[in-house]
Amino acid sequence: MTANAIAVDVGGTEMKAALVAVDRHRAEPLRWLRRPTPRGADGAETAELVVAAVAELVAELRVGASADAVGVVVPGAVDEDRGIGVYSANLGWSDVPLRDMLAERIDLPVSLGHDVRAGGLAEARLGAARGMRDVVVLPIGTGIAAALLFGGQLHSGGGFAGELGHVDIGHGEPCGCGRTGCVEALASSAAVARRYQERTGVERSSAEVASAVRAGDPDAQAVWQEAVDALAKGLLVLVTIAAPECIVLGGGFAQAGDLLTEPLRDRLDGMLAAYHRRPRLELAELGDTAGCLGAALLATEGLRTK
Amino acid sequence: MTANAIAVDVGGTEMKAALVAVDRHRAEPLRWLRRPTPRGADGAETAELVVAAVAELVAELRVGASADAVGVVVPGAVDEDRGIGVYSANLGWSDVPLRDMLAERIDLPVSLGHDVRAGGLAEARLGAARGMRDVVVLPIGTGIAAALLFGGQLHSGGGFAGELGHVDIGHGEPCGCGRTGCVEALASSAAVARRYQERTGVERSSAEVASAVRAGDPDAQAVWQEAVDALAKGLLVLVTIAAPECIVLGGGFAQAGDLLTEPLRDRLDGMLAAYHRRPRLELAELGDTAGCLGAALLATEGLRTK
Repeated sequence: MTANAIAVDVGGTEMKAALVAVDRHRAEPLRWLRRPTPRGADGAETAELVVAAVAELVAELRVGASADAVGVVVPGAVDEDRGIGVYSANLGWSDVPLRDMLAERIDLPVSLGHDVRAGGLAEARLGAARGMRDVVVLPIGTGIAAALLFGGQLHSGGGFAGELGHVDIGHGEPCGCGRTGCVEALASSAAVARRYQERTGVERSSAEVASAVRAGDPDAQAVWQEAVDALAKGLLVLVTIAAPECIVLGGGFAQAGDLLTEPLRDRLDGMLAAYHRRPRLELAELGDTAGCLGAALLATEGLRTK
Repeated sequence: MTANAIAVDVGGTEMKAALVAVDRHRAEPLRWLRRPTPRGADGAETAELVVAAVAELVAELRVGASADAVGVVVPGAVDEDRGIGVYSANLGWSDVPLRDMLAERIDLPVSLGHDVRAGGLAEARLGAARGMRDVVVLPIGTGIAAALLFGGQLHSGGGFAGELGHVDIGHGEPCGCGRTGCVEALASSAAVARRYQERTGVERSSAEVASAVRAGDPDAQAVWQEAVDALAKGLLVLVTIAAPECIVLGGGFAQAGDLLTEPLRDRLDGMLAAYHRRPRLELAELGDTAGCLGAALLATEGLRTK
């Protein structure tokens, strides 16, 4: 059975929307629309404006097409079960009943999801981990938060699961969260850029640091190695507790490709014991369309369970 | 619908078996049998003898009763999906196809499970965490391994999930597994007994150390506090990654009751941040019948999915 979903990924600066044909093994975007994310004077007004803009995108994508359901994903903390945007630092809202607000304006079943978890669902069903059931998808950007799938189903833990970036791995460096030792204090793309600047005084993005690693810059290599080491220790904790079959690395940082995966695989392999499942380590395949494709999957799963 | 399951919990020294009436909200043992666990010259022979003994227990419990399915749980590493006893240090076997071996001798549907995970399932459905969907059940004994339930379903990770005892929390002390810093190197009942003896030269069980804590023994208090601290750090990692609603503490160590839960709750609460789910901390309710009740649940779930 094929269903048509309208999927909207609400980002901090841009909203991506697509009409997507979904069946059991595929999600095919038929048409895309992009719009700037509207901003209000405060979080509540931003939420109203976003809901109105999503409704317009949905109306536009329905012209001349049949649609069965709508999936909308947003950043920050999201409670999928209750359909609530719990908190978004970026969009400024807290505790907004987004699903109900959307349902008032849209006469189709609406699912609300979390951008990272929805993207993880897409990678697990359609991307780098397709065919696998116990999967962790880890986008590494400014922060590090994982989407967890167990038995093929997303685990959201009331919106709190997967905060791998804030596991204390003992390095003692301060994190933006107020603690010390967090994985993301060394291993996020923001941390790599910051730490390179601290060593050298030179301002570079994490992608530029990666190029410098390839070019043999010893400061870049030292920062990179510390990032890989921190990430490996974080993944070891994840493997010890959750035992995924496959870990998918995504986000800006993973665009370094082999420069990240090869030393990370070696470092992790060297730490695994007999009581650990040995996970595959893969690079994400769906890029910045993952959130939208995941929203489409959530929309049609919502259909099946309603 | 009520189904009758025959449940067998194969322990290192004793097998507990029961005829159990199971419905959606209840598992009522109607009759119990206990037998010593048979031992062969090697693991393969032990597996043969255990299978034969289980078949005899099943036959005996079926006399005069109707039975719909059989659930058997064993210790060590277990792959439930493939029905294999992957490894048991205690019983000496590795890679034995226990479910198929049992099915050859028993003309009822047979499910194979893991003793700790089955016990966790029972606590989550019938015991301390009933009504909750994201649950960790943590029996603390010689070692520390968790049963994880997400969305009400056991997550086994191919038999490897939940090795909380071997998360490195940075204390640097050696663990029996060959690494350092593991939670169970400070917080298992074996560790508490060993560390008390190291400080004082006096041999005491963890239960006796708990009594000494209540009596004001400063060495006992120091060892206890280190155990609680290590356990709190382990639980923090678990909460950061898996975000359970409820953590159930069981096993011999949890018989200390409030002496364990009160300082543990305080210590954990003091470490939680805004991005953490705040879990309930409960003591296990089902005691040493949890494994058998869980085996009965597995047996009847097997029925529903076959």
